[in-house]
Amino acid sequence: MESFLYQQNKRKIQSPSVLAGIVEKIPFFKESLDPFSCVAEELELVEQNLTRSIRSKECVLTEISSHLIHSGGKRVRPMVTLLAFKAFGGKRTGDVVDIATAIELIHTATLLHDDIIDGANIRRGRESANKRFGLKSTLVTGDFLFIKAFEFAGKFDDTVVQWTADACTLLTEGEILQGYFNRNTKVTVKDYLEIVRRKTASLFQTGTKLGAYMAGATPPQVEWIGQYGLNLGIAFQMVDDVLDIVGHKELLGKPTGMDLRDGNPSLPIVLSLRVGQKAVMDTFECPHPSEGKIRGALEAMGRGIAIQQAKVYSKKYALKASKLIEKIPPSLYRSRLRALGQLIIERDF
Amino acid sequence: MESFLYQQNKRKIQSPSVLAGIVEKIPFFKESLDPFSCVAEELELVEQNLTRSIRSKECVLTEISSHLIHSGGKRVRPMVTLLAFKAFGGKRTGDVVDIATAIELIHTATLLHDDIIDGANIRRGRESANKRFGLKSTLVTGDFLFIKAFEFAGKFDDTVVQWTADACTLLTEGEILQGYFNRNTKVTVKDYLEIVRRKTASLFQTGTKLGAYMAGATPPQVEWIGQYGLNLGIAFQMVDDVLDIVGHKELLGKPTGMDLRDGNPSLPIVLSLRVGQKAVMDTFECPHPSEGKIRGALEAMGRGIAIQQAKVYSKKYALKASKLIEKIPPSLYRSRLRALGQLIIERDF
Repeated sequence: MESFLYQQNKRKIQSPSVLAGIVEKIPFFKESLDPFSCVAEELELVEQNLTRSIRSKECVLTEISSHLIHSGGKRVRPMVTLLAFKAFGGKRTGDVVDIATAIELIHTATLLHDDIIDGANIRRGRESANKRFGLKSTLVTGDFLFIKAFEFAGKFDDTVVQWTADACTLLTEGEILQGYFNRNTKVTVKDYLEIVRRKTASLFQTGTKLGAYMAGATPPQVEWIGQYGLNLGIAFQMVDDVLDIVGHKELLGKPTGMDLRDGNPSLPIVLSLRVGQKAVMDTFECPHPSEGKIRGALEAMGRGIAIQQAKVYSKKYALKASKLIEKIPPSLYRSRLRALGQLIIERDF
Repeated sequence: MESFLYQQNKRKIQSPSVLAGIVEKIPFFKESLDPFSCVAEELELVEQNLTRSIRSKECVLTEISSHLIHSGGKRVRPMVTLLAFKAFGGKRTGDVVDIATAIELIHTATLLHDDIIDGANIRRGRESANKRFGLKSTLVTGDFLFIKAFEFAGKFDDTVVQWTADACTLLTEGEILQGYFNRNTKVTVKDYLEIVRRKTASLFQTGTKLGAYMAGATPPQVEWIGQYGLNLGIAFQMVDDVLDIVGHKELLGKPTGMDLRDGNPSLPIVLSLRVGQKAVMDTFECPHPSEGKIRGALEAMGRGIAIQQAKVYSKKYALKASKLIEKIPPSLYRSRLRALGQLIIERDF
């Protein structure tokens, strides 16, 4: 469902200089504080961890893992984890790099299994693993990545293990809830928010909490930054949903209208259903909507107010995140976490 | 692939008295040492753990988990884990019960994903989860159970986490290797052994190693009992493979010939291919063999020497397990681990 800050078919987050290059292309970033560069070194260590962890005697596991991991993921979850750690004065980064790696591995595992569930053909601008390597190998590789995440997170204390496991449990519960509302026109904004809380925001929330916890933040501080992560994650997904309607195929790395095609209740779809927009309702309900039907529904949404409303929603959650971040001690990293909130709602890819 | 010591559609391992009932039905057990009863109390705690851990706010996750977990699994992996613990004088069983639970949860998760991979309709005498609940929910429930296993195993030290993760990695690598040899007549006994080592025996090996480790066994003792587990697991799978050809549907809780139907290289199939048995070769290669074709191949195998040879193989590995167990200090539990090896090759369901 996501599409932000990646280059089609190229993994480009591997060195600070490359990061700087990406950031320069985004006007907003040049005027603001760049959240990447101040954790670029640690993100590079996360990359090394990821590359090392997917080695297997069965090369297809490595190949499928690499296909997705080296396809230009944004690493936004590791990034917020690392920023949260540093915002609370965390110094020795070895452990938090491992936690950030676990978070990204979990995210990647769920993408592989999601692609099976959605029957997706395209992911991050290239053929999905499911399409290229088939269901069986893709399923097993998802398991493999979950196990690798366990290796990283399982080294830490009970709190880390429990929070990580809880986030993963929420992901599965979110997937089930989303499945329940697949092509189901009864879905409400409240249902949508619950799905997003579980499916997207939980890893943002847990990443930020773990980052703060590893840095020795107090329990209330951990709670605040977790709430920041939760709201940031919700805003992030909402913008993603909007871009699935109005974004550009080349920038997104996938066609628009994927949520309509898959019958997944994105925010603009839910808002269109709420006002009884017939073209959207018919397309969303249809098991195999034609491309013409999808185009019609996208155009109808473009004419309606759903997109505008969805943007208002995303701003509301990003603003909430920005306000929550004020509660933590001021620092360079706090400023960058705030900037990230603004970046997320300003982005157009 | 397995079918041993369970009652169709009934979960019957919940109390020592029920266990005693099962054991009494097996002539061999009456003459031998019953490996169940001496860890019945701990197995009951494993049951309680399992039931508690599958609770979810999404009832379908609980329902699918329960469908498989409460369908009469033999709990042979938790059992050997507990016996290994006690064989090395382990006393406080709380921790090893959690480890044994993790091992069973991992096994159950892989069964759910295996059923998707094999497109299986039947498991433990009832409709497979994949058939009844569909691919999507079954896939997610498999993930859910992996996560619950992680919750249990992640509480322990790095050794426990690493061995558990390594066993899980082997399971995925075994699945890939099995996929490679699916309907592939080039498969050799060596390939078969490597698949079984990874897919079945690794959890037996890791369970016994972890049991011994938790009891404070020395590294060489841990290694021996792990080798016992490995060989026991191989023998166990070989007997399972034989029963898939010559077993009784009612006792197995599934039709015979499943490995031929799914194209999975079981030992009798591999041995039949080795001698160029045409009916087996044609059926094994065929993407959708008819029931008549499968029956023909089963009959051909019944006439050939593959079954007899497979039994010899299973005895060889069970004997190896029995010899390895002699290396550990004599005890009631050692005798029962040895009895288990004999039971496994004697069973006819």
